[in-house]
Amino acid sequence: MKRVVEEQYERLKENTVNFISDVEFKAKLETSLKTNKPLRIKFGADPTAPDIHLGHTVILNKLRQFQEFGHIVDFIIGDFTAMIGDPSGKSETRKPLSRETVIHNAKTYQDQIFKVLDREKTIITFNSKWFDTMNFRDVIQLSSHYSVARMLERDDFSKRYTNGLPISIVEFLYPLIQGYDSVMLNADVEMGGTDQTFNLLVGRDLQKAYGQQEQIVLTMPILEGTDGIQKMSKSLGNYIGINEAPKEIFGKIMSISDTLMVRYYRLLTERTAQQVDMMESDIAAGKQHPMDLKKQLAREIITRFYDSSQAEEAHEEFTRVFSHGNLPDDIPQFPLSAISGSGQSVWICSLLKSTHLTASTSEARRMVQQGAVYCNNEKITDPDAQISLTEGMIFKVGKRRYAKITS
Amino acid sequence: MKRVVEEQYERLKENTVNFISDVEFKAKLETSLKTNKPLRIKFGADPTAPDIHLGHTVILNKLRQFQEFGHIVDFIIGDFTAMIGDPSGKSETRKPLSRETVIHNAKTYQDQIFKVLDREKTIITFNSKWFDTMNFRDVIQLSSHYSVARMLERDDFSKRYTNGLPISIVEFLYPLIQGYDSVMLNADVEMGGTDQTFNLLVGRDLQKAYGQQEQIVLTMPILEGTDGIQKMSKSLGNYIGINEAPKEIFGKIMSISDTLMVRYYRLLTERTAQQVDMMESDIAAGKQHPMDLKKQLAREIITRFYDSSQAEEAHEEFTRVFSHGNLPDDIPQFPLSAISGSGQSVWICSLLKSTHLTASTSEARRMVQQGAVYCNNEKITDPDAQISLTEGMIFKVGKRRYAKITS
Repeated sequence: MKRVVEEQYERLKENTVNFISDVEFKAKLETSLKTNKPLRIKFGADPTAPDIHLGHTVILNKLRQFQEFGHIVDFIIGDFTAMIGDPSGKSETRKPLSRETVIHNAKTYQDQIFKVLDREKTIITFNSKWFDTMNFRDVIQLSSHYSVARMLERDDFSKRYTNGLPISIVEFLYPLIQGYDSVMLNADVEMGGTDQTFNLLVGRDLQKAYGQQEQIVLTMPILEGTDGIQKMSKSLGNYIGINEAPKEIFGKIMSISDTLMVRYYRLLTERTAQQVDMMESDIAAGKQHPMDLKKQLAREIITRFYDSSQAEEAHEEFTRVFSHGNLPDDIPQFPLSAISGSGQSVWICSLLKSTHLTASTSEARRMVQQGAVYCNNEKITDPDAQISLTEGMIFKVGKRRYAKITS
Repeated sequence: MKRVVEEQYERLKENTVNFISDVEFKAKLETSLKTNKPLRIKFGADPTAPDIHLGHTVILNKLRQFQEFGHIVDFIIGDFTAMIGDPSGKSETRKPLSRETVIHNAKTYQDQIFKVLDREKTIITFNSKWFDTMNFRDVIQLSSHYSVARMLERDDFSKRYTNGLPISIVEFLYPLIQGYDSVMLNADVEMGGTDQTFNLLVGRDLQKAYGQQEQIVLTMPILEGTDGIQKMSKSLGNYIGINEAPKEIFGKIMSISDTLMVRYYRLLTERTAQQVDMMESDIAAGKQHPMDLKKQLAREIITRFYDSSQAEEAHEEFTRVFSHGNLPDDIPQFPLSAISGSGQSVWICSLLKSTHLTASTSEARRMVQQGAVYCNNEKITDPDAQISLTEGMIFKVGKRRYAKITS
């Protein structure tokens, strides 16, 4: 049994950032094996942002590993606070969600997480289940178990406090709410991003205060977006959504740096740490070509969220367009009459906008200035150029955006 | 009307420490007179300590003044938190009180406050009325209206935080609870001791947050005990309880300093500030004797809590014993046989204890050493003295404790 414990421990610890604590975790694994009772792995999600990208899947992949060893994932939907929104009523972006919206968002969330998680080993719970019936007396009890000083140790609180920026007392209640979820679930492990470390530790403290064994806290690194620098996020535009079209995913993966590729292999595929280490030395030794490995990575990721034939198709499409300089199959077409109207010449920026190659004429101007605009494979350098349109002309912006003029 | 407003304002402001703010208060008085609607004066009390002493009556007297001008006192019994006690369960001294105990204590409290307040112009409310039905969502709403930084400005919090002493998050909820009482009452004025200033100001902020006009905050000084230095308090033994026997009250008042007497006149009688100022200059000019004024003060205070004939009796008793060196009427008597047993001599300390003149032999030893013990008007100086008891002997400890040996 010691060997099985070691094996699970080694595998589950791979790529983690915080792991509190090793000794307790091994003990929990041992008890779980002895009593044949799976561990309960808690993961909490906010039902306000249901669009999942690869950044989110770093944790989902780890949860999946737990499931593969037989453990159970407790997926907590934090609907209680979502339905309250911003209690001060000042924030436009945190409006209270209706129960219907919460349920709808949670459904969207589930559809996506089950592309990674094992449905049979996942229990979904809405935390309004226990918070809806809690009264003021219970809140007093709960809040007596945590000190102001410890709360102010949280990075963002201490920064705001030091800089004289207001922290509302309600913000001290939110970590307690998250932590109390752990008490109600009697969680064995809680997972989160490194930015959640503090909140996960509150869960440990509250479990102790309520006479429970403390949960293991396990955090995963934050995944960098396609730029390789900033955290992957929808608002930064450096994300790869798991619902994006296969050829979009393929193209985005092919655009990342070799270093980031290795990191994606580590955090987004099922390869062991040892396998990725070997891959790294193979690249260094010239035994493997990064371009091939990127294509392989793209195929694997698409296969996970779609299937292998769609991955193959995306690969072929990519090869046709970029590796051989050919045009893709499905260039959007625009009739000459619709674009030029009276048949006179057209300003390049206005043309790019009306063919949807750019969002605006000012974006078009920037693209031309950056040398990213081609007409029939010839670069256009003057943003004030007037183009006399003819049938069959092909315009290209950046690497993958095309438009064709038809009769 | 301006004159009536000024008159109430001047009288009510007398002896106050904080008064926030003058302008708002005058406006409230004016509206009250115009609309013929009395002001609501909030005062909150904790139903855990029902013994009232003169220190408490400083505020009660001011409340009574409000009533004399026609305003209404909202007397809030803070039973909600009293019934919770110390939520951490660690404190032995703050055990949760049952509803029965709370009601019993509140009753005791009422019996005492109505010796000062006008029953017809007092509304008593238990704050569990609104807090018992409050849920977590309401608490989140409430706690969103106050910032951590402002809470940490409270003197005791900031000291504890700076010194690394723990503050539980629940302690941030208590001022909000007190403040929310003001919202529920829509209080016009809240009164308290100077040590309550912060909490009363929270009430103002919360009323504002809930769209109400802010209450006037009015604090009274803390009354010094009979020692003239420390705050009057039961635990320090420097208090005069309003339920003490008239002759006890008389004796204690006569023991205070001349300076403290003037302060007691200010804070404990119905004299105006001007009248007390005049008294002070009369004393300085030798027109009035402080001893006479002390007797007058004692009579007035006893009259308030008992009646004028009991005040007169206490005065006469005091005059008999102390002014003329006579013995009081009611010296406790102890039969010779009960004390000396076999008739042999008795150790002085053991004698003092068995006649209840001291609580213990060690206290007896201290009293002898301090020269406070007399036998038949002769000072006893040796704490190891053996006394041969005879019938009729009179022992005296301090100024007012006697015991007589009988056959």
